[in-house]
Amino acid sequence: MPVFAPVGTQATVKTVTPDELEQAGATLILSNTYHLYLRPGADLIARLGGLHRFMRWPHPILTDSGGFQVFSLQDLRQIDEDGVTFRSYLDGSTHRFTPEKAVALQEQLGADIIMCFDECAEPHDRAYNEQALRRTHRWAERCRAAQRRADQALFGIVQGGIFPDLRARSAEFLTQLDLPGYAIGGLSVGESKDKMHAMLDVVTPLLPEDRPRYLMGVGSPEDLLEGVSRGIDMFDCVLPTRTARNGGLMTRDGRINLRAARYAEDGGPIEEGCDCYTCRRFSRAYLRHLLKVKEMLGLRLATIHNLRFMLRLIGEIRQSILNGEFAAFKQDFLGRYRIVPHAVRAEQKRNRMANRRRFKGQ
Amino acid sequence: MPVFAPVGTQATVKTVTPDELEQAGATLILSNTYHLYLRPGADLIARLGGLHRFMRWPHPILTDSGGFQVFSLQDLRQIDEDGVTFRSYLDGSTHRFTPEKAVALQEQLGADIIMCFDECAEPHDRAYNEQALRRTHRWAERCRAAQRRADQALFGIVQGGIFPDLRARSAEFLTQLDLPGYAIGGLSVGESKDKMHAMLDVVTPLLPEDRPRYLMGVGSPEDLLEGVSRGIDMFDCVLPTRTARNGGLMTRDGRINLRAARYAEDGGPIEEGCDCYTCRRFSRAYLRHLLKVKEMLGLRLATIHNLRFMLRLIGEIRQSILNGEFAAFKQDFLGRYRIVPHAVRAEQKRNRMANRRRFKGQ
Repeated sequence: MPVFAPVGTQATVKTVTPDELEQAGATLILSNTYHLYLRPGADLIARLGGLHRFMRWPHPILTDSGGFQVFSLQDLRQIDEDGVTFRSYLDGSTHRFTPEKAVALQEQLGADIIMCFDECAEPHDRAYNEQALRRTHRWAERCRAAQRRADQALFGIVQGGIFPDLRARSAEFLTQLDLPGYAIGGLSVGESKDKMHAMLDVVTPLLPEDRPRYLMGVGSPEDLLEGVSRGIDMFDCVLPTRTARNGGLMTRDGRINLRAARYAEDGGPIEEGCDCYTCRRFSRAYLRHLLKVKEMLGLRLATIHNLRFMLRLIGEIRQSILNGEFAAFKQDFLGRYRIVPHAVRAEQKRNRMANRRRFKGQ
Repeated sequence: MPVFAPVGTQATVKTVTPDELEQAGATLILSNTYHLYLRPGADLIARLGGLHRFMRWPHPILTDSGGFQVFSLQDLRQIDEDGVTFRSYLDGSTHRFTPEKAVALQEQLGADIIMCFDECAEPHDRAYNEQALRRTHRWAERCRAAQRRADQALFGIVQGGIFPDLRARSAEFLTQLDLPGYAIGGLSVGESKDKMHAMLDVVTPLLPEDRPRYLMGVGSPEDLLEGVSRGIDMFDCVLPTRTARNGGLMTRDGRINLRAARYAEDGGPIEEGCDCYTCRRFSRAYLRHLLKVKEMLGLRLATIHNLRFMLRLIGEIRQSILNGEFAAFKQDFLGRYRIVPHAVRAEQKRNRMANRRRFKGQ
């Protein structure tokens, strides 16, 4: 049954409390090992009882391995067969991640689902992807061997860029490791939706039916529907929260930019029928005012709505599957949801830029 | 019975919802006419049903007249006998406030308590204060004459800088106008506490016993106690909220800077025994982490604590008055509350700077 995980990079989903997350319907959140390793430190979080206790989130947490961020560091990192050496963007100090270190850090953080340390290569470079894939596979074996805690599910990550044969090789190799779950990585970095779908069509049939399949870093409304169609069970994405902070509010008819002048005197809620705190309490006009004058409350209220929108959607997807009506639900939803092509392109560009900046915690 | 009003400059007390304000114990909030006039516009708020409805705050609101901000504009404003012409810091456009306009705007906003348009002069310049005071008094008469709505209490503002005879003259003049309440202005702009107390000692005995006395823009914990001692009933201050956003957390033992390294692994609440949401839910270590990594949630959680601290304090002051034990309560509190002199001086300097920047909504 598919789930959508909001992103809580620095042990907080930006602007909201755990209670607000729970009210929005979140069941799983993602947090970033790389950021928490740098600040406040995985050892400190361990001494304070682990990430759940530290941030007061009593429900499941997934941590990534730090690989994605470290490989985004470009000039600040050096890869070798054993791991990656990188400089902190905070103080220039030198650090080293290996598969064993990534697992040890994630054991200190204590998430429910942890990820193998992988090499996230530029998706269009075949030679580099071949080399990176071999490393990712060896590192997956080392991660499995390094695991000490029995209460965490270690997921493998299928890589291979936009190359179907590499993706297939990766899915087959990792399946042999008999891991409790499998992720598909490297598809959130700005490639076209068609390429992403093509890769999913290759990979998901090769993954075991009885293990969750997690599409990393992907999660627009249309991605959820297309992903579930192709056998994906888990998504995480900064889209609802980041879009909210840019004034983009999600509705069944598509995304609206609440900063637009036409909402200045609109006394209605963001979305009729939405049960989120923001829609129950405040008008579009008020939220627009808060966003225009850059009040933090506006960013929070927008975030709450978008989170609820995504979590309601994934809930309805689950229900439609239970009712055997997913195909009709998908068609209905996509028939109504207006995707603005230039907004999608802008979002993809923003994602690429954001991925570059991501290691800075922005 | 004394009340403390949190400041919601732009139709929001920064970072918190009306529900959170209510939970913290707020009964009255202040909002700024000048800011709301510029964005989103008092006419727009009127069309949407007034400020209470716009921001969903069903309890009392006080609006200032805009005078304080307009007079802070320095080079951007020109004063004449009839009013003030000023340029918008947003787009350079020219605007004009008169006593009549200030009342009309406040009638559009629809607060429960509205303020006379006054001239807030630099407190140490005798000649200027004499001139400004005459204008403030004439403007008070014009404000009273301009009032159209019968459901708003119009307060006069005693000015006169640091000059006892001017303060006395102002209190006597305004008392003759028989207004429903009186404010004491111009004492929040960085002058010494001794001077402030001396002015209160002159003014409050001259104001009618049966009307509320409001000390504008003042409200540290020690100010509340010293003010109540001297007959003040109402306070407003950005101190708890602004201090919170700088990482300063208020406790019965004094203010602590939660960014300090010694709180890094402190699993306790901000303040033992505090019933605020933050203290009931989160540790000092977690809040410190949020503040250190500049997460907005940290600013909100700190704000919630400081608001609750101030509102609990004013509640205890009220109770001690009812019990006839105010003097003992004051002595106990001040005996324990550690005022760090350099922090007070830094705060005063910050206030002066902030007052200069205030018109920018910061």
